[in-house]
Amino acid sequence: MSYIKNPMEIENRSFEIIGEEMGSHNFSEEELKIIKRVIHTTADFEYKNLIDISKTAIESAKEALKNNPTIYTDTNMALSGINKRALEKLNGKAICYVNLPEVHVEAKEKGITRSMAAVHKACADNVDIFVFGNAPTALFKLKELIAEGKVNPKLIVAVPVGFVGAAESKEDLDQLNIPYIRVKGRKGGSTVAAAIINALMYMCVER
Amino acid sequence: MSYIKNPMEIENRSFEIIGEEMGSHNFSEEELKIIKRVIHTTADFEYKNLIDISKTAIESAKEALKNNPTIYTDTNMALSGINKRALEKLNGKAICYVNLPEVHVEAKEKGITRSMAAVHKACADNVDIFVFGNAPTALFKLKELIAEGKVNPKLIVAVPVGFVGAAESKEDLDQLNIPYIRVKGRKGGSTVAAAIINALMYMCVER
Repeated sequence: MSYIKNPMEIENRSFEIIGEEMGSHNFSEEELKIIKRVIHTTADFEYKNLIDISKTAIESAKEALKNNPTIYTDTNMALSGINKRALEKLNGKAICYVNLPEVHVEAKEKGITRSMAAVHKACADNVDIFVFGNAPTALFKLKELIAEGKVNPKLIVAVPVGFVGAAESKEDLDQLNIPYIRVKGRKGGSTVAAAIINALMYMCVER
Repeated sequence: MSYIKNPMEIENRSFEIIGEEMGSHNFSEEELKIIKRVIHTTADFEYKNLIDISKTAIESAKEALKNNPTIYTDTNMALSGINKRALEKLNGKAICYVNLPEVHVEAKEKGITRSMAAVHKACADNVDIFVFGNAPTALFKLKELIAEGKVNPKLIVAVPVGFVGAAESKEDLDQLNIPYIRVKGRKGGSTVAAAIINALMYMCVER
């Protein structure tokens, strides 16, 4: 059977189709790269209306990514979706603490989620970009830590998905004075989170 | 701030909300577990109408999962989303060959995707369940190998997402005489793939 087998050819054609079908918009060229990559990874055009990129988010992200970035993800699945070749070219590292034994212990002792305990631990690591695709509790916790002056990231990718707390966790991000990219409402997820961070990295490195 | 911090409580409440909002349906109790978990992971109710579970798929999957299953995934992201505790309780293993150096070499030599070369390699491993969330080319290749009598899996989870080949790759699965769970059309993805296999595993083990 005949089908396209060249990966870059598949991706380029996909982005063409997305551009043709997404209709009119007011996005900048760089915003469009993020939005198209999210639609590419979900086949869900609703993201066109759900993604909210704060004014300084892309510039702040690019500056962080060009300076040996440390990226923290809430799940190993989001971590796994981050393009490692691009990350390596940027001399960056991506970490996720949710499976560490000490995080299990702290979560159990305090009756909190592992995601929360893991973010708390990540506080000590000078994280530049927090990437949350799953855990509203991680995002709630991060906002607390920011309010307490314990962390000051260059970007939050805030796209937890779900029915309990996800929408609420993303609601008041514009009050924080931290650059963010969020998906409004319930949608989001690890693939969306990875797509956003990959789109940002591809602005900074040759693929 | 007050928010639910107990993971099982969050999940149970989420599934309640999904049940309340999804409206009437004709799914069996077990089909519903799969569909609800996919909606839980995407916050996208459209999956209610897109998921197609072949007649023998759930029984065949359960039988495979209870007998030291080997699960092959097309991406490391899907692999990463598979619940490892449940898999361990089932004495199963999950593999993905897409990053193996020999797979890179074969793909380059033949001008095919790494996903295709990786599926070809997996052929030798008596895979019980193939899980494809991303690569239509992997699914095309698997169908060729099945037609040639080289593999005979107990289930295909066929949910590649995308704009080039994804819908087509899933179209004629009902012609193969292999149990399958698919998402019709363009939608799907690694999180959807992992949700489906996790839902099936949770039917077979205590969590």
